[in-house]
Amino acid sequence: MGQTITEKIFSDHVGHAVRAGEIIKSKIDMVIGNDITTPISIRAFEQSGATKLANPDGFSIVMDHYIPAKDIASANQAKISREFAYKHDLKHYFDEKDMGIEHALLPEKGLVVPGDVIIGADSHTCTHGALGAFATGMGSTDLAFAMITGENWFKVPESIKVVFSGKPKKYVYGKDLILEVIRILGVDGALYRTLEFTGDTIGYLSMDDRFSLCNMAIEAGAKSGIVAVDDITKAFLNDKNLAREPKFFYSDVDATYVHVLHIDVANLEPVIAYPFLPSNGKSINEAVKDDLSIDQVFIGSCTNGRLEDLRIAASILKGRKVARKTRLIITPATQKISLQAQKEGLVDIFIEAGAVFSNPTCGACLGGYMGILGEGERCVSTTNRNFVGRMGARTSEIYLANSAVAAASAVMGKITDPRSL
Amino acid sequence: MGQTITEKIFSDHVGHAVRAGEIIKSKIDMVIGNDITTPISIRAFEQSGATKLANPDGFSIVMDHYIPAKDIASANQAKISREFAYKHDLKHYFDEKDMGIEHALLPEKGLVVPGDVIIGADSHTCTHGALGAFATGMGSTDLAFAMITGENWFKVPESIKVVFSGKPKKYVYGKDLILEVIRILGVDGALYRTLEFTGDTIGYLSMDDRFSLCNMAIEAGAKSGIVAVDDITKAFLNDKNLAREPKFFYSDVDATYVHVLHIDVANLEPVIAYPFLPSNGKSINEAVKDDLSIDQVFIGSCTNGRLEDLRIAASILKGRKVARKTRLIITPATQKISLQAQKEGLVDIFIEAGAVFSNPTCGACLGGYMGILGEGERCVSTTNRNFVGRMGARTSEIYLANSAVAAASAVMGKITDPRSL
Repeated sequence: MGQTITEKIFSDHVGHAVRAGEIIKSKIDMVIGNDITTPISIRAFEQSGATKLANPDGFSIVMDHYIPAKDIASANQAKISREFAYKHDLKHYFDEKDMGIEHALLPEKGLVVPGDVIIGADSHTCTHGALGAFATGMGSTDLAFAMITGENWFKVPESIKVVFSGKPKKYVYGKDLILEVIRILGVDGALYRTLEFTGDTIGYLSMDDRFSLCNMAIEAGAKSGIVAVDDITKAFLNDKNLAREPKFFYSDVDATYVHVLHIDVANLEPVIAYPFLPSNGKSINEAVKDDLSIDQVFIGSCTNGRLEDLRIAASILKGRKVARKTRLIITPATQKISLQAQKEGLVDIFIEAGAVFSNPTCGACLGGYMGILGEGERCVSTTNRNFVGRMGARTSEIYLANSAVAAASAVMGKITDPRSL
Repeated sequence: MGQTITEKIFSDHVGHAVRAGEIIKSKIDMVIGNDITTPISIRAFEQSGATKLANPDGFSIVMDHYIPAKDIASANQAKISREFAYKHDLKHYFDEKDMGIEHALLPEKGLVVPGDVIIGADSHTCTHGALGAFATGMGSTDLAFAMITGENWFKVPESIKVVFSGKPKKYVYGKDLILEVIRILGVDGALYRTLEFTGDTIGYLSMDDRFSLCNMAIEAGAKSGIVAVDDITKAFLNDKNLAREPKFFYSDVDATYVHVLHIDVANLEPVIAYPFLPSNGKSINEAVKDDLSIDQVFIGSCTNGRLEDLRIAASILKGRKVARKTRLIITPATQKISLQAQKEGLVDIFIEAGAVFSNPTCGACLGGYMGILGEGERCVSTTNRNFVGRMGARTSEIYLANSAVAAASAVMGKITDPRSL
C-alpha cells in the first residue's frame, strides 16, 4: 500500500517506512521560536543543564510579535531571546535588524525547504507546508526538547485529501479556498490530521496563495497542511540560497486518506468569515447584504501580508480614498516585501489613499500593537483568527477576508465585494 | 520703549500695546489637541454645556501618541476624539488617514503661520515658535476654554535673548544649540519666559533646525521659544496653502530682556545630554571617552524626526551596518516626510543598514510604543527628554543627541562622534 507525502517525509527522516498512527522520533530540520515563545523554551533548555544547541543552524529566533518593543514587559521579554542569541552566536536570529514575520521570513531566506520536518512554537508554523514540507506548531517546552536533542516525537498524522478543482474567479485566492475548507470541516474537523491540498486548482495558485492556504490549516484543527512541490514551488526556490538540499516527495496514488474533500473552486465566491470563528464563512454575495459599517481594515499577518496581498490591495486603492470613518492599516510581512512594495510604488498608493503602512510585525493580528480594536469596533482583517477579543476589546468584531475584499471594504467603509467598485 | 516680538504678537491679538507681565486675554489662532490630551478637553467642553466650537477651523486634533492603537486602552481613548471629530465635522482632524506628529504636521500643512498665537495640550507646542509665532503648551482644560471661547488668558512672558554667533561646524545642528542653551540655563532657567533666538547663526539654520531649536525651549522651563521670520522662513512658507495671512513681527532694538545669553556656535561641538536631565550636556569629545555601549538608537520625534534628520542619518548609514548588538529605530515625523524619504532612497539605505523604519508616530519618545526600553538598557535618542523611565524601564538610560551622533552610535554600538567614522 502506498504512502502519503507526510508519511514519506517522516520515513525519510527516520530511515525506514512509517505509516500514519506510528509514534516515531524524527530529526528536526528547523526549529522556530519567536519573541513570545522562545523565552519559555530557553528557560527549559537551561533548566535541563544543556549548554549547547544540538543543531545551531537548525534553530531560528524571529522577533516578530511585540517588536520593536511595545512596552516594558515586551522589552524585557525580548532581552531573554537577544541574550541567548548573542551567547550562542546564533546565525538565524532576526530582530529589528531584519524584521519579518517568521512564517514569511524563513521561506524568503531559504531556511525552510521541501522535504523538511519543521517545528515552531507558533501555531501557524503549518504555513511552511506550502513548500512540500512537514511543518507544525508545538509548545515551547517541546521546542526546548528539539533544541537540546535535535529531534522530537511525533505520531505520524493521518491525512485528509482536499481536491480543489477549477480555475478561481477574479478576487478568489488561497485565503478563500482555506476559509471554504474550514467552513465545511469546522474548527475541529481536521484534529491531528494533515490537510493535503491537491487538484488542478493548485496550478493556478501562486506561492503566496499556497502559504496563505497552508497557514490556516490549524484553524480546522489540522496538525499540518501541505502542497506537493511543482514548477511554481521550484521557481520560488530558484533564486534562493537554500539551507539544505530540497527533497521532493509525492503521495502515492494508493495512499490512504481518512477523508477526501472535493471543492469546486470554479464556482467559489470570495469568502468572509464572521465573528467569532474562522469556520463562520459566508459568501461575499451574502455578506454585502448585511451592510455592516467597518471601523478598521487590517491587511497583513503571516496569512496575508505578502507581496501579492499588497499588489492586490494597491490595485484597488489606486486613485481611491479610504472611507472617512474607516482606518486602514497595512503591515508588510517582511522588510524585503516592504522594499519591493516601495519600489513598485505601492506604498505611495497606500499612503495617498489614506492608509498607514507600518514596519513588518505580527502587530494587530494577535492584539499585539499597531491597530488594536476598541469597544464595539468592527474590523475586516486578512488575518487568521476572529475569536472573541483576538485583536482587542472583547466586544470588537473581526471579519476575516482576502486582501481584495479588505481593500474594497476600506474604500467603502463597509463589507464590500471588490467586483462592485 | 520698544517691544519684543512676543509683546508685539500679543499686542496685535488684543488690539493695544501690551508689555511683559500684563495679564491679557488673547484670541487663539490654532488650538491643538492629540489623542492623549483631547479626551480630557472634550469632557470639559461637554461638561460646560457647549455644543459648538468657537472657531472650528482653528482647532486641530492630531492622533499621534498611541496611534495606530497599541492596546485596548489607547483604542478606546482614540474613540473619544474620533467621535468628537466626526460629530463636529472637524476639518483639521488627522489620524491613520494622514499620520504625523502634531508639531511637524501642522507647519507642513500651513495650519500654523507667523504672527499666530497657538496653544496645544502638549508641552512641545513651543516648536511652532520657529515660524515667528507665539506657541505654548497648556493643560487640557485650558484647551477646552479656548475651544469654547476662541480665546485664553496669558501673562505676557518676559524674554531671554539668546544670541548665537558663528557658523556651526559640520555635524552641529539646532539640536546641539538648544542642548547647549539648556546646559547653561538648566531645566528651570527660563521659567515662564520666552527664549528669543537671535544672532548671525540663525541664518545658517534650516527650518528643520529651527523647529528642533524651539521644540526644546520647554526643557529649559520656557513658556515659548521664538525665531523671527527671515528669508528661510519665507521660503518654507512659499509652497504652502496658509490657513491665515502671515504677520511678521520683529523685536525692537530697545526691547527689554531679563537676560541676554551669548553662545559661540563656531566653537561648539555636538552635545549629548546624559541621563537623567536634558541639561546634563557633555561635548561629544568628552562623551566618547566614556565608551558606553548602546542597546538602542532612536531617530524620530517632534524634535528630530524631520526630513533633514533622515537625510543626515542616511548619509552616515549608507554602505554601513548597524552594530550587531544595537538596534536602530527610525520614525519619520509625518507621512509626507516618509514619502519623500522613500523617493530619495533613504528608506532603502535604512533597511539595508539594518534599521526599522516605522510609520509616523510619537512612539518610543514618550514610552508609547515602537521601541520601549527594557531594564538597564541604554539608548541614544534624538528626542527631547531623558528623564527616569521616559522611554521605558526606570533603570534604562537615555542619551539625547542629534541625528548624526545617533546614526554614528548605531553603527559603532557605542556613543560615537560622526567625524570619527
